[in-house]
Amino acid sequence: MNKTGRPQDSPLSNPRADRVRDVAKLAGRPARLKRGHFLAEGPQSVREALRLHQERLAAGSPGVVTDVYASETCLDRFPEFEELAEGTNAWLATDEVLAAMADTVNPQGIIAVCRFVDVSLESVLDAGPRLIAVLCQVRDPGNAGTVLRAADSAGADAVVLTGSSVDIYNPKAVRSTAGSLFHLPVVLGAEVADLVEACKARGIGILAADGYGSLNLDALQDENARRRLTGSGPDSVYDLGGPTAWLFGNEAQGLSAAELELADHRVAVPVYGAAESLNLGTAATVCLYASARSQRN
Amino acid sequence: MNKTGRPQDSPLSNPRADRVRDVAKLAGRPARLKRGHFLAEGPQSVREALRLHQERLAAGSPGVVTDVYASETCLDRFPEFEELAEGTNAWLATDEVLAAMADTVNPQGIIAVCRFVDVSLESVLDAGPRLIAVLCQVRDPGNAGTVLRAADSAGADAVVLTGSSVDIYNPKAVRSTAGSLFHLPVVLGAEVADLVEACKARGIGILAADGYGSLNLDALQDENARRRLTGSGPDSVYDLGGPTAWLFGNEAQGLSAAELELADHRVAVPVYGAAESLNLGTAATVCLYASARSQRN
Repeated sequence: MNKTGRPQDSPLSNPRADRVRDVAKLAGRPARLKRGHFLAEGPQSVREALRLHQERLAAGSPGVVTDVYASETCLDRFPEFEELAEGTNAWLATDEVLAAMADTVNPQGIIAVCRFVDVSLESVLDAGPRLIAVLCQVRDPGNAGTVLRAADSAGADAVVLTGSSVDIYNPKAVRSTAGSLFHLPVVLGAEVADLVEACKARGIGILAADGYGSLNLDALQDENARRRLTGSGPDSVYDLGGPTAWLFGNEAQGLSAAELELADHRVAVPVYGAAESLNLGTAATVCLYASARSQRN
Repeated sequence: MNKTGRPQDSPLSNPRADRVRDVAKLAGRPARLKRGHFLAEGPQSVREALRLHQERLAAGSPGVVTDVYASETCLDRFPEFEELAEGTNAWLATDEVLAAMADTVNPQGIIAVCRFVDVSLESVLDAGPRLIAVLCQVRDPGNAGTVLRAADSAGADAVVLTGSSVDIYNPKAVRSTAGSLFHLPVVLGAEVADLVEACKARGIGILAADGYGSLNLDALQDENARRRLTGSGPDSVYDLGGPTAWLFGNEAQGLSAAELELADHRVAVPVYGAAESLNLGTAATVCLYASARSQRN
């Protein structure tokens, strides 16, 4: 597997080669910013990166993946990668080389170097989104990736990270998305105030996920369901079926006072047990699925 | 702070002392099993451990915490720990000693040695539980802790881990519960088949969370809501408002064929986007909250 389509005579085997070092540097933010590239590691992430790559090529757009490095064992196990990697620089490499390139101890035999995939806020809003997840000052890469994956599961149309949030191209964040980074548009470096203004101008409601919120998410869902199923009852305080951007805050402090101020409503996921709070991934999941259900009914 | 209630002359300061080594060993399973003790680290976990400890003492039961080690800075910041630690052996310690005892790089100034808190399956079932989360072959300590915390948030009456699951007393698992380990009964080492039999005998329904399940959780919720709100419509396939034990499987493989076979129904959390699957914490959260909502309506 190489760029000419012919199998190499032998896999890349020198873990101290410049090329290996260059790839490994993408685990750090300075190299990523300088080159506009990041790492996808493991079969699931690389497969989704390559699928998006092929879709884009088929649409006449630039691809996503520049280089793929895979072990022979991995290609034996997942022969589909040969075809998926067409139009990229694809290389056989030894496990030692792959380990030296990867951020994980065990990259599971395959690594791809990808171009940044984030898009502009305007392009997201112009597409008429119904459900957006906004991460404000989220610091943990695993949390950011988990919320992005949950947003993908719930069918969200986009994920927006504010400038103060963790870099979604951090290898741990990419891993936590389990490929979802390549499924839905991601906007980076947004200013919450600008985002909220742009959403409101287009009729998108703003809900803040806030443990101290006065609106209870389950009560809101019930109210929405009652009105929908019985055609009667008072108007809901907020129509969960309408286009919505959810704001999610920092894992330790939640949303700031200024961020809360921007929302139409502050909504609490009810805690029925003794837990002090929900973790970010759990809270975001419940909120996004509540919207997804209401929007589909 | 020490067991006599008098401030020590000086904090424990030798990170190589036997006592420090003994505490540090509790990060490993052999020492935990031998001594029946585990570590709670950081203010949130230790506070919840001490609250349970005081509740138990007040009820005339044996306490949970044997020793507390805290830095002066931590006690200045959280003066409530002085009172909460009554009835334990409480020691001042330097940050260096705390770091040597802890599994984390930064134990945030406080560590508690706790007695195992798990209970028997019988005691859980005798209390007439309405909602139980069962973790089958869950291997990642962070996942197990996250699901336990989500179960606490959803007001579950107990969490059961099968014998093939990760040790919930692993320090990373304890941390991920964010104190919830001390909020609700936990059963360890269960056999799924025995558990299911015992549940069924008491009228507790068994639902398997399964991405390939033929029942769609959202459709099931809608069916339940329609019947409840309109008093009409066909009987639901399953009454989500009834007592339920949810089975959650291994993070990579899901539930085994044998485990699926034991359930009354296999229920899929719908994936509305392009994600291949939900992560375990996300799926468990959606399932448990769906039950919690239905049971409270």
